[in-house]
Amino acid sequence: MTGNRAVAYKSPGVVEVIDIDYPTFELKDGPGVNPANVGRKVPHGVILRTVTTNICGSDQHMVRGRTTAPSDLVLGHEITGEVVECGPDVEFIKVGDIVSVPFNISCGRCRNCKERKTGICLNVNPDRPGSAYGYVDMGGWVGGQAEYVLVPYADWNLLKFPDRDQALEKIMDLTMLSDIFPTGFHGAYSAGVGVGSTVYVAGAGPVGLAAAASAQLLGAAVVIVADLNEERLAQARSFGCETIDLRNGEPQDQIEQILGEPTVDCGVDAVGFEARGHGKDAGQERPATVLNSLMTVTAAGGGLGIPGLYVTGDPGGVDEAAKVGSLSIRLGLGWAKSLSFTTGQCPVMKYNRGLMMAILHDKVQIAKAVNAQAISLEDAPRGYAEFDAGKSVKYVLNPNKYVK
Amino acid sequence: MTGNRAVAYKSPGVVEVIDIDYPTFELKDGPGVNPANVGRKVPHGVILRTVTTNICGSDQHMVRGRTTAPSDLVLGHEITGEVVECGPDVEFIKVGDIVSVPFNISCGRCRNCKERKTGICLNVNPDRPGSAYGYVDMGGWVGGQAEYVLVPYADWNLLKFPDRDQALEKIMDLTMLSDIFPTGFHGAYSAGVGVGSTVYVAGAGPVGLAAAASAQLLGAAVVIVADLNEERLAQARSFGCETIDLRNGEPQDQIEQILGEPTVDCGVDAVGFEARGHGKDAGQERPATVLNSLMTVTAAGGGLGIPGLYVTGDPGGVDEAAKVGSLSIRLGLGWAKSLSFTTGQCPVMKYNRGLMMAILHDKVQIAKAVNAQAISLEDAPRGYAEFDAGKSVKYVLNPNKYVK
Amino acid sequence: MTGNRAVAYKSPGVVEVIDIDYPTFELKDGPGVNPANVGRKVPHGVILRTVTTNICGSDQHMVRGRTTAPSDLVLGHEITGEVVECGPDVEFIKVGDIVSVPFNISCGRCRNCKERKTGICLNVNPDRPGSAYGYVDMGGWVGGQAEYVLVPYADWNLLKFPDRDQALEKIMDLTMLSDIFPTGFHGAYSAGVGVGSTVYVAGAGPVGLAAAASAQLLGAAVVIVADLNEERLAQARSFGCETIDLRNGEPQDQIEQILGEPTVDCGVDAVGFEARGHGKDAGQERPATVLNSLMTVTAAGGGLGIPGLYVTGDPGGVDEAAKVGSLSIRLGLGWAKSLSFTTGQCPVMKYNRGLMMAILHDKVQIAKAVNAQAISLEDAPRGYAEFDAGKSVKYVLNPNKYVK
Amino acid sequence: MTGNRAVAYKSPGVVEVIDIDYPTFELKDGPGVNPANVGRKVPHGVILRTVTTNICGSDQHMVRGRTTAPSDLVLGHEITGEVVECGPDVEFIKVGDIVSVPFNISCGRCRNCKERKTGICLNVNPDRPGSAYGYVDMGGWVGGQAEYVLVPYADWNLLKFPDRDQALEKIMDLTMLSDIFPTGFHGAYSAGVGVGSTVYVAGAGPVGLAAAASAQLLGAAVVIVADLNEERLAQARSFGCETIDLRNGEPQDQIEQILGEPTVDCGVDAVGFEARGHGKDAGQERPATVLNSLMTVTAAGGGLGIPGLYVTGDPGGVDEAAKVGSLSIRLGLGWAKSLSFTTGQCPVMKYNRGLMMAILHDKVQIAKAVNAQAISLEDAPRGYAEFDAGKSVKYVLNPNKYVK
Repeated sequence: MTGNRAVAYKSPGVVEVIDIDYPTFELKDGPGVNPANVGRKVPHGVILRTVTTNICGSDQHMVRGRTTAPSDLVLGHEITGEVVECGPDVEFIKVGDIVSVPFNISCGRCRNCKERKTGICLNVNPDRPGSAYGYVDMGGWVGGQAEYVLVPYADWNLLKFPDRDQALEKIMDLTMLSDIFPTGFHGAYSAGVGVGSTVYVAGAGPVGLAAAASAQLLGAAVVIVADLNEERLAQARSFGCETIDLRNGEPQDQIEQILGEPTVDCGVDAVGFEARGHGKDAGQERPATVLNSLMTVTAAGGGLGIPGLYVTGDPGGVDEAAKVGSLSIRLGLGWAKSLSFTTGQCPVMKYNRGLMMAILHDKVQIAKAVNAQAISLEDAPRGYAEFDAGKSVKYVLNPNKYVK
Repeated sequence: MTGNRAVAYKSPGVVEVIDIDYPTFELKDGPGVNPANVGRKVPHGVILRTVTTNICGSDQHMVRGRTTAPSDLVLGHEITGEVVECGPDVEFIKVGDIVSVPFNISCGRCRNCKERKTGICLNVNPDRPGSAYGYVDMGGWVGGQAEYVLVPYADWNLLKFPDRDQALEKIMDLTMLSDIFPTGFHGAYSAGVGVGSTVYVAGAGPVGLAAAASAQLLGAAVVIVADLNEERLAQARSFGCETIDLRNGEPQDQIEQILGEPTVDCGVDAVGFEARGHGKDAGQERPATVLNSLMTVTAAGGGLGIPGLYVTGDPGGVDEAAKVGSLSIRLGLGWAKSLSFTTGQCPVMKYNRGLMMAILHDKVQIAKAVNAQAISLEDAPRGYAEFDAGKSVKYVLNPNKYVK
Repeated sequence: MTGNRAVAYKSPGVVEVIDIDYPTFELKDGPGVNPANVGRKVPHGVILRTVTTNICGSDQHMVRGRTTAPSDLVLGHEITGEVVECGPDVEFIKVGDIVSVPFNISCGRCRNCKERKTGICLNVNPDRPGSAYGYVDMGGWVGGQAEYVLVPYADWNLLKFPDRDQALEKIMDLTMLSDIFPTGFHGAYSAGVGVGSTVYVAGAGPVGLAAAASAQLLGAAVVIVADLNEERLAQARSFGCETIDLRNGEPQDQIEQILGEPTVDCGVDAVGFEARGHGKDAGQERPATVLNSLMTVTAAGGGLGIPGLYVTGDPGGVDEAAKVGSLSIRLGLGWAKSLSFTTGQCPVMKYNRGLMMAILHDKVQIAKAVNAQAISLEDAPRGYAEFDAGKSVKYVLNPNKYVK
Repeated sequence: MTGNRAVAYKSPGVVEVIDIDYPTFELKDGPGVNPANVGRKVPHGVILRTVTTNICGSDQHMVRGRTTAPSDLVLGHEITGEVVECGPDVEFIKVGDIVSVPFNISCGRCRNCKERKTGICLNVNPDRPGSAYGYVDMGGWVGGQAEYVLVPYADWNLLKFPDRDQALEKIMDLTMLSDIFPTGFHGAYSAGVGVGSTVYVAGAGPVGLAAAASAQLLGAAVVIVADLNEERLAQARSFGCETIDLRNGEPQDQIEQILGEPTVDCGVDAVGFEARGHGKDAGQERPATVLNSLMTVTAAGGGLGIPGLYVTGDPGGVDEAAKVGSLSIRLGLGWAKSLSFTTGQCPVMKYNRGLMMAILHDKVQIAKAVNAQAISLEDAPRGYAEFDAGKSVKYVLNPNKYVK
């Protein structure tokens, strides 16, 4: 029996690498597993030997203790793997395939999946539409920051790379297809970015950088990235973005210096509910500040893509409203400007194949854009800590030494 | 010289019919006219003898004193007219044409107009994108609840009816093309209503009823209209809608009784910022209640169309936040459900021609749906009062006796 | 062991009811079965007891001997059934469900299915993208004009009706969801029909009538149906269409009489390659006549939806070009008018759920529109003959007495 | 009185630079002017001093004698200019503005213009929807290969460059906005090109090269350009395209070598009706060969963008069918593959602003891609001859020495 080392959340601020069971084709009870999912058969699943699995900003919400995640919950929803075992119902995916796993788990059989809305699959999470690996309240599917992981509905979910050697050669780019590249792309796309657009991306973390790279890929004329962290802004500049340091005040003036006008066509919120204020509010949590700022800087008729996470319950919220996910939004302003807003998890399967093609044919350097760095699985706790401290690195765990 | 009787706002709660100047092809100073527009030449305009001009719910915001509208501002942005004089630059519109006037004034020359975003034209309002007749802070174009009115950029703005006699015969339907029919349609359309959709419309005023009729025209399977006013709900039932009386509590249970499930595919906010609570908050102003309720009743992946007006400044707002148009929105819930939101003025020109065709070929009975009733111009004050009191009537002013 | 009576093609003009094997969860060799599909395991399939199964105009191409269909090929791709047995991999569909079967077989696992292009699934037909039950060169899946039939990939393909009693009550409408209603709808939808459109439908057979009813459901202002068969035109008039008898010459004049102008916004070809000429060409096969006529009557900027079937090989074609599916098309005219063209099988799963909702909530009477009539399975040969003779009836076979 | 030198078509194969009248704000009779347009007042027009004006492949159809163009017709529909005089109705465009002129003339007042379909404006060409400068049967608007030219409906038609110096610095790129860049872009866009697409462009003339550059800008993974002319193919390779020399036979095999499969997602026809055969048909005119080839190489479900010109009448057509614009198209194949087709003139105004932004911010090098070279107006005859001989150059006339 093969062992299975995995990264687990222990308590606020504490992440550890522990031993867990090798996956089987059945969901077992465990930390965070929804009781209604215990015992669920997964003959349509495959077991992957993890090739890469990335640390994500949304994992940090759990690690910081901002959720009800239980101790020993295994983390990780950004997974690329090699198929080592196929369930009896799997027909097209084969042992040996190198595959990207969309972080949203979906069944490929419900109304929403049939409509390409795989971020809100109706059949995988007993609590609500939508699910993910290794995430609190998402059904209890074991996380993929591990040596091995189970992926259900494999024929539907998995994106197979056409060539094994090519895939391993470009693995630091391809690993971003499981989440942040499509998520950033969805932010840009749903904000209406097209050829010639001017774009403002709030947040220069990995999703913000991926949104910026995506906006470029979509033909944007100018991409402006804003943050409070100079290291992250430097990273954005490294691939041709304009940047705004929010510690210098409101962004409109800086936008006007860049564009000759104080507004952009499209805005992307790549921050979410743990947003912090700038100027006199510097460092304080201001959950609505990004959205309100985007409404100011986006021109009338523009679109806002909101891949940044907002939650229905936040025990650590700054006030009673924030604790239940209510924010004080300048909706009157948005309405007067005829803005539109797209929220929610990215439906990864809508985008991942096209983005894979762009990577394989060298049309985008996403690993470079987000400053991807591979570290060992055992180093995950350090990765979490450094990322949380604001280091402009996208940590890629390498549990089985596929990455050289 | 012809005289020109017109409906003017005098003070909170008071509307009067007064004498104003006959229009000329130049914008003159007057109540609510933007100084930067004074003296503006309008050779591209036409003068209309008003055929019909409707009282709109958004006029009520001014009449109730919820805005900074000055005394003697001439009201009216829902205008149908007969062309009696053409400016020298008008090429295609002719004297004698019966035309519908989109309530949004637009130039047909700016970037936004070229992109069909006529609700946010850049050239007609010196203060911000977007303009309208007879409305505070909208540039100062004189309202159309009058015997005669000037319409600028006539070749661009006007929708000519193909046949005069047919137009006058169906005038009570066609008069709705200037605002509420396209506005309700935009709400339904931008909520994603299509063939087979289930739809929830918040508000059974004229815009809500128009949204409901539009949803039916778009092929919706079930249209549910909710309000606190039984007379308005009865009106909705008269053309095949299901209804929910919000005085009986939260809508989910009633939706479940109708549909067998507690959610709908699409939600429309036909109320706006003067929303009132229900249940224990009955009668109290709760500006965010409609939006928050829509997020609850709309299924994951659904769309929200928000034609109901939200404003950037509301002197009569319930609290400091409301006074600047900030609302406490359950964005966390909306995000978890991957909802999308479309706000803003309806770009009337995107829809009015198709809706005219539907009226002319008897595919929709919009006048009946909103219970249109013609009254004289002199009766306008009574119309405002009764409408404000909740009467389920759409008042159509008839200043020149075109309506028999 | 249950027997299985089925309708088979014998030779040009001859259809017979024969005994075939009861289905199993494996594809067996037989008339028209692609060798590469023989022995294919179908654990993801279900066996249906047929509730209804309709005779389709595209079956007639085989029956007339216009294809290479072999003798004893079992016909039928318009299937509604009750699930009597589930393969071991079926998870969500249950025994006793009443379900509609999309005529296009699709796997729900390939790139095209994931993009909702289920009419060109890559995994079900070894010869080319796209497949269907009971059709020559479509992979060899046994037809459903039988008492029992196998449906593969059941969780993906099947549309379950929410309530058994309601389904059986409306079965004559719901049976149209397997093919002609979505196919006609696709024609109208891809032609760009929307609220207020004027539409010309070439052909008043069942697909043409379904396209006309669909255009109405989409909000068309005027729907004009053209044919050479007066009985079919009368059927079109019975639900509010305008009609044109092509025996009276070119349609433009008649369109002008109806609309006041000689062109429409949208055109639908519901005829296909066996089109016949009118006027001096009356009765002769003119495979390009419908498309060329549509280019004439559709206004510049319009769209053409082409659900009518065109084939790559037609042994009975009028000339060498027609035999390989080449047609003399007035492309210069189409280009000068900036027309767009959408061809191909309808991807049924994109539309069937919404259309089901419209039926269940009485927004459309499709059975009445196409004049659906139930006959016994044994009467199928008569149904084929009468339909081929031009009778304006949609024959619904009733093999198991579900239809009262 | 300023003179006005201009390039005129004299007879098949002969182009000369002649003296014509300086423009006035009224359409006068002359070669190719539609009688119904003679005397038409143009107070909404401006007079431009031509900055650049390009020779276009579609001009060659006239020059080769393939149309009914009369002698002395002034050529030129690709115009960039400086405004030197404004008609009395012009409000927003000012003397001194540097502007791009969309080759389609449109009024900005008709139904089609309001729907952004400016390629088929209803008010500028008395014969049919759609118009252009200096083109036979397009209304008779005098061509722009001249020192001065009149542009009607200037506020609507013209795209103003934000900064004069910047515009003149990038003029060799910006001059492509009047036609071939948007036209190529429209081909790619309407073929469905998006991020990750594989694209096949038939024809490596300027429009084909512009389509290829556009496909790259839209994020295509691989762009393959095919032609019979090695110089043009080398040009395509110079900016990263793959190429196929059609003299080596059918393209499928070469596509398979490039992509690993014999089909692409999207096909663009940048050739049109004067297509020539390859292989055994080498050098012979085969008007349907490009379209038929595209149907073969485009994968099922793909889109075909057809910016290449097809005409309703071609006196020099290879056969009777070709003379009236009828082509033998393999529609059966297209239908079996569910292909869609978009034809017609590019509606330039839909794209030119975004493409301008992409140029101004260095996201595309269109002048380099098409090998733009400036020559004097007097050298136009040489430019025509060399371009017709297959030289891979896009000739930019420089009548007023703006280009250094």
